[in-house]
Amino acid sequence: MSHAPDSPVRPRVVIIGCGFGGIEAVRALARAEVEITLIDRTNHHLFQPLLYQVATANLSAPAISGPIRHILRKEMQRGRLTILLGEVTAIDTAARSVELDGGKERIPYDHLIVAAGATHSYFGNDQWAQHAPGLKTLADAFTIRRRVLMAFERAERKHDEAQRMKCLTFAVVGAGPTGVEMAGQLAEIAHHTLPDEYRRIDSRRARVLLIEGGPRVLSAFTEEMSGRAKAQLDMLGVEVLTNARVTGIDAEGLDYDSPDGPRRIDSQTIVWAAGVAASPLGRSLAGSSGCETDRAGRVVVQADLTIPGHPEISVVGDLAAAKSHPKKGEPTPVPGVSPAAKQMGRQAAQNLLRRLRGEPTLPFRYLDYGALATIGRRAAIASVDVPVLGTVKFSGAFAWLFWLFVHIYFLIGFRNRLVVLSDWAWAYFSFERQARVVADPEVPPAKTVA
Amino acid sequence: MSHAPDSPVRPRVVIIGCGFGGIEAVRALARAEVEITLIDRTNHHLFQPLLYQVATANLSAPAISGPIRHILRKEMQRGRLTILLGEVTAIDTAARSVELDGGKERIPYDHLIVAAGATHSYFGNDQWAQHAPGLKTLADAFTIRRRVLMAFERAERKHDEAQRMKCLTFAVVGAGPTGVEMAGQLAEIAHHTLPDEYRRIDSRRARVLLIEGGPRVLSAFTEEMSGRAKAQLDMLGVEVLTNARVTGIDAEGLDYDSPDGPRRIDSQTIVWAAGVAASPLGRSLAGSSGCETDRAGRVVVQADLTIPGHPEISVVGDLAAAKSHPKKGEPTPVPGVSPAAKQMGRQAAQNLLRRLRGEPTLPFRYLDYGALATIGRRAAIASVDVPVLGTVKFSGAFAWLFWLFVHIYFLIGFRNRLVVLSDWAWAYFSFERQARVVADPEVPPAKTVA
Repeated sequence: MSHAPDSPVRPRVVIIGCGFGGIEAVRALARAEVEITLIDRTNHHLFQPLLYQVATANLSAPAISGPIRHILRKEMQRGRLTILLGEVTAIDTAARSVELDGGKERIPYDHLIVAAGATHSYFGNDQWAQHAPGLKTLADAFTIRRRVLMAFERAERKHDEAQRMKCLTFAVVGAGPTGVEMAGQLAEIAHHTLPDEYRRIDSRRARVLLIEGGPRVLSAFTEEMSGRAKAQLDMLGVEVLTNARVTGIDAEGLDYDSPDGPRRIDSQTIVWAAGVAASPLGRSLAGSSGCETDRAGRVVVQADLTIPGHPEISVVGDLAAAKSHPKKGEPTPVPGVSPAAKQMGRQAAQNLLRRLRGEPTLPFRYLDYGALATIGRRAAIASVDVPVLGTVKFSGAFAWLFWLFVHIYFLIGFRNRLVVLSDWAWAYFSFERQARVVADPEVPPAKTVA
Repeated sequence: MSHAPDSPVRPRVVIIGCGFGGIEAVRALARAEVEITLIDRTNHHLFQPLLYQVATANLSAPAISGPIRHILRKEMQRGRLTILLGEVTAIDTAARSVELDGGKERIPYDHLIVAAGATHSYFGNDQWAQHAPGLKTLADAFTIRRRVLMAFERAERKHDEAQRMKCLTFAVVGAGPTGVEMAGQLAEIAHHTLPDEYRRIDSRRARVLLIEGGPRVLSAFTEEMSGRAKAQLDMLGVEVLTNARVTGIDAEGLDYDSPDGPRRIDSQTIVWAAGVAASPLGRSLAGSSGCETDRAGRVVVQADLTIPGHPEISVVGDLAAAKSHPKKGEPTPVPGVSPAAKQMGRQAAQNLLRRLRGEPTLPFRYLDYGALATIGRRAAIASVDVPVLGTVKFSGAFAWLFWLFVHIYFLIGFRNRLVVLSDWAWAYFSFERQARVVADPEVPPAKTVA
């Protein structure tokens, strides 16, 4: 079906989620003759790649997040975009509607783009969540910030040495990009930010452990790059434990199986960076449409990002188990990174417009610019795909500067970029941290998905 | 008793509270041969005069607060200051010790400076707290920020006009400085920040009511200045109701008695800026020492800020009912403002040192530089005491610039000043607000004192 530009009845597009995928989809549809409803359960878009810096007191929350309505104010001014703050609790593919806040309201759609993202997974051990918060939302970041800063405060008040060390031992589970960044920052806090600010303890004696089930850190990189990352972590004072599979977490520490048998670490501050699970909406969509989900709960999509039998429904971003379809060669899985989410959001919107024009949809092709992981002050690794030259790999201070440039460039909004740049410059030269303030009382950890 | 500079046993000074009074007391004692323990239940010093800007999404929390340990790092380096994060739950004047966290630990003292501040008072109606949060801590500011921003979001989702207006009606109770600032900012949010960002509602239709029990706003100023403030509030679109005594507050609105009889306002967003009560520690001190407290729970102190019969205990800041002793004339009550708290903190420390040297203590004399209240963009009133000229009164844009200069000047830390200045400049020219992000889930309101 096609609509004349002046048609009073425009096709209704509902977009769930205002992450990288959702924002790009809205932007790609903003000039089209469609009625868009964007639904998110928060009022802000979050630049998740820098969330660990909020958790480690380097940046304030407003520096890496912006109100959705402000980010999309130009799109809003065209008069065809409605933004609703609410939680989509179910999708009814037969009635073509989404349910808000457990049934309070139903929003009908002609086209649906689901970009609801992912949350942490404790692999069936949800009781670990209270002792080892993950890092997905601003609330998570505040929880971790509070626990880290309070651990040093508790240590200052202990008179017993073993008790003190339990407070001063930090364990990060999972050595993917988030785990490595968190561990690097924790080591910097202990060694550079806090020394000389306590009377009874020496913050430099704090231990930061990075616990990885697999054989090496940052396993998405080559073995050589992963080794360089490990060397930089060593220099920062992070103790890396590989082949260490966590078997239990409680308020006083964690247990793990190592090649030398079961071991225990006494620690009151544990951060979970090991598992990711798709939003529960994936299961709701599967239940209603009969589509498949993979082991992590992600929705298995077709080449054009729609689900089988429902050309009106696309799934993008971390919720999608998608494949990239290169011009030559076999399809390859799309990684769960923000450039992929953006590209999927854009493509789902473009395919939607093609359908409205009666044209065939196109398969998704992921443009991979390479991979980048930061570790700490002047420490990072990069593997960048450069035309003609092929893959260029580098590490250390230059990779770190490159990481800095890329992250500033992609930060949403001119103003946020300036704020973050100035905060970073300050932190770099003063070794100080902008946001060492614990404002919120203890709140229960966010709901998790097994 | 006096101590030689090299004496290994230094008198132990305990200071409770890290507000303006506590910080100044530490600074005044830092070079003396005393062992200082500073206790606070948060990890930060808060620049409370700008807290309303965090509540109204103009500033981030780290912009107006700094970690205590960082603020006092130079004093810490002298090796005689211990900072403990904990809540003082009782004072035992006979044993000369304070109790931490309900008895977990006891800290003995030779000298005690109590600077525990104040909280809100609902005049015996504590059930109002959940519907009308006050503004004393960063957590309070986040609660108000969330409620204000969420009210507009709820309005966008309502289909019924009366329901929508209930969401778009904001009531501030109490027209002292905080109430006036809050009302002015809320009007600016509705009229300047949010227009064009909603599809279904016009944020300019929001009502902002300022409800005052007395006959005029900012009653600490002269009648003429108060009238000018009222005129500026009118221009900003704030509806001022005077002689309106609130008799009930619930989730859907508030009741008040007006000269024309009882009235009701439907509103889901109410801010309490009416009553202040001293910290409950005042009562603990009175119970233990037999000293007097006034109606607001403040400790009645002697001319030198100590309590009767206990020359080793001083009370300063908002917790003290103190009098200023001018060179000529009668003693006058000291107002509950930050310059007074600072001066009292300094004087209590100096009197303590005089006692250690065997010198007599001096009565407190408050140096009043005048009063200043801001209302909104280019709107403020000022009444400043200038030598020779006497009291100079001015209002409008010049008073506002003066207010801005004074607040930047007194903000703690070079870095925070730059951050706040740049945030304000941005907000002024763009009409945008830096911190329109709701990160935290709903938390119960802070405990209140009747």
